[in-house]
Amino acid sequence: MTRLPSLRAGEPVLAFDVGGTDIKSGLVDPSGAVLGLRRTATPLDPDDGAGNPERIVARLAELRDDYRREFPEVRPTAAGLLVPGIVDPDRGIGVFSSNLGWHDAPIRDLAEQCLGLPVAFNHDIHGSSMAEYRLGSAGRFRDVVVMIIGTGIAGTIIVDGRAHLAQGYAGEFGHSPVADGPVCACGAVGCLEAVASAGAIARRYTAARPTSAAPASGAHDVLARAQAGDPVAAEVWDSAVDALALSFTQVAAFLAPEAIIIAGGLSRAGDALFAPLRERVDRRLSYHRRPEILPAELGEDAGLAGAALFARARATATDGGAA
Amino acid sequence: MTRLPSLRAGEPVLAFDVGGTDIKSGLVDPSGAVLGLRRTATPLDPDDGAGNPERIVARLAELRDDYRREFPEVRPTAAGLLVPGIVDPDRGIGVFSSNLGWHDAPIRDLAEQCLGLPVAFNHDIHGSSMAEYRLGSAGRFRDVVVMIIGTGIAGTIIVDGRAHLAQGYAGEFGHSPVADGPVCACGAVGCLEAVASAGAIARRYTAARPTSAAPASGAHDVLARAQAGDPVAAEVWDSAVDALALSFTQVAAFLAPEAIIIAGGLSRAGDALFAPLRERVDRRLSYHRRPEILPAELGEDAGLAGAALFARARATATDGGAA
Repeated sequence: MTRLPSLRAGEPVLAFDVGGTDIKSGLVDPSGAVLGLRRTATPLDPDDGAGNPERIVARLAELRDDYRREFPEVRPTAAGLLVPGIVDPDRGIGVFSSNLGWHDAPIRDLAEQCLGLPVAFNHDIHGSSMAEYRLGSAGRFRDVVVMIIGTGIAGTIIVDGRAHLAQGYAGEFGHSPVADGPVCACGAVGCLEAVASAGAIARRYTAARPTSAAPASGAHDVLARAQAGDPVAAEVWDSAVDALALSFTQVAAFLAPEAIIIAGGLSRAGDALFAPLRERVDRRLSYHRRPEILPAELGEDAGLAGAALFARARATATDGGAA
Repeated sequence: MTRLPSLRAGEPVLAFDVGGTDIKSGLVDPSGAVLGLRRTATPLDPDDGAGNPERIVARLAELRDDYRREFPEVRPTAAGLLVPGIVDPDRGIGVFSSNLGWHDAPIRDLAEQCLGLPVAFNHDIHGSSMAEYRLGSAGRFRDVVVMIIGTGIAGTIIVDGRAHLAQGYAGEFGHSPVADGPVCACGAVGCLEAVASAGAIARRYTAARPTSAAPASGAHDVLARAQAGDPVAAEVWDSAVDALALSFTQVAAFLAPEAIIIAGGLSRAGDALFAPLRERVDRRLSYHRRPEILPAELGEDAGLAGAALFARARATATDGGAA
């Protein structure tokens, strides 16, 4: 029913992971089981497709009501809410989201009012990363980077067992320059995300493909074509792995993590990604500490697990309310 | 007599900053004044120029004896010892030094035996950085990077007020790739240090200069020639600033520090460095947090101040001895 690992016994909580397309939600019971895991459409403004924070929060309250009806015996004591973009968890602010179009939205306060529960508010990437750290393969390291490579590329830097957030600005690996081009959606030039994200791999192949070939349906399609002998697909895949190797080398020089954990869609490429990536990072490094490069263990619901973990921490925080 | 800021009142300690050429030393009295600040030659092996740890530590004991004679009223309760290379402060090990030629040398234990004092042992770059953080301009930030650009390039990452060391491997900004070449002394290709350190700027100019021009005496000489209209010098300086801007952009994307503080010889170039560097980093960034880019406040004796700070922490550590 769910690929989520057990969260162990604890406070019952609601968990929400709001994306640009859908909202993942679930109710975690006191045993740690996730009940009613589902995806529903993110309510977007019909005019411009923006995600009005009040409308989204109202949708979360509807979901809470659904869970009350379905599971009346489970009474959540807090909620965890993850959103994309730049997020300031300390102030509870959605600073900026290109997908959802908000600026400086006081989402945590809105959600607490609307849900009538204390809300742990954070960045979706950070939620997924921390779930991977607390429940998955990253947990045996003190200094580790979790990098999520999917539509975009971003991650969380864990230093001595603690996440380094920098008011939501840290871990933007995807928006670090690795090349002289192309121009990225963020406005900067040569960002890793514009070369090596799953989305960029599909786009770059589609733009460069012979006219006889169909557009790529995704990065895995590009990889399949490369493995079937398509030289354009092979070149796109190879250059993406090169860009990732360059970025991982920079991470190793700056931060010297014991490991870099790759999550997100691209991590499911397996050896076609990990074998050349490890080999190229190893070749680029000299005396540096060599990070293990490992796939994440949690699946695509890692964010929901992270929301639940944050919610439980919020439920048991000593202040019992604000902050 | 010394450019060091006051260390304030505290335990009297010995401070040593061992480099590949000389040892800086000083005695800090209970008021925080640095007495007998001096440089003496690092004793190197006459055959291969390597720095035998026992010989170096014996030299430190001679310096301690000198201070005893000169300042008999000051009785140090601990010593701080900084060395170059890869250093594991937790285990007290000099892991590797290309200058001094050691591998896995138990220098802290040797120094404690030879000096008869508890010894705080650390990396010279980290000592300088932490002095800058505790006594200089970096101190008003919680998330800050101190980057020392001199013969080499390395620094310290401070996350939420605490240094991120990673057993001595973190902060190797100079050995992160920024270009396809040249091969760096470390063995890797295109390291920042091989393009933009003060040493590399002088070397690159000297290699590329017209045969009628004299070799550069240092990076400041290259800058002076550029300002006097030498196009080769201008190109070398410009490409070094470009490489630094690229690296600072990567630091901003990964770590999002509030500020990057530049210390070391190159920081004394003033506006010729800071103005174009700030402008280029600003141009490269999009939604990222923009770091302030500031010169360090402490001079070349920052390392000695760091050694003294570490020694005082060691003197007042509750265990009073080992570790």
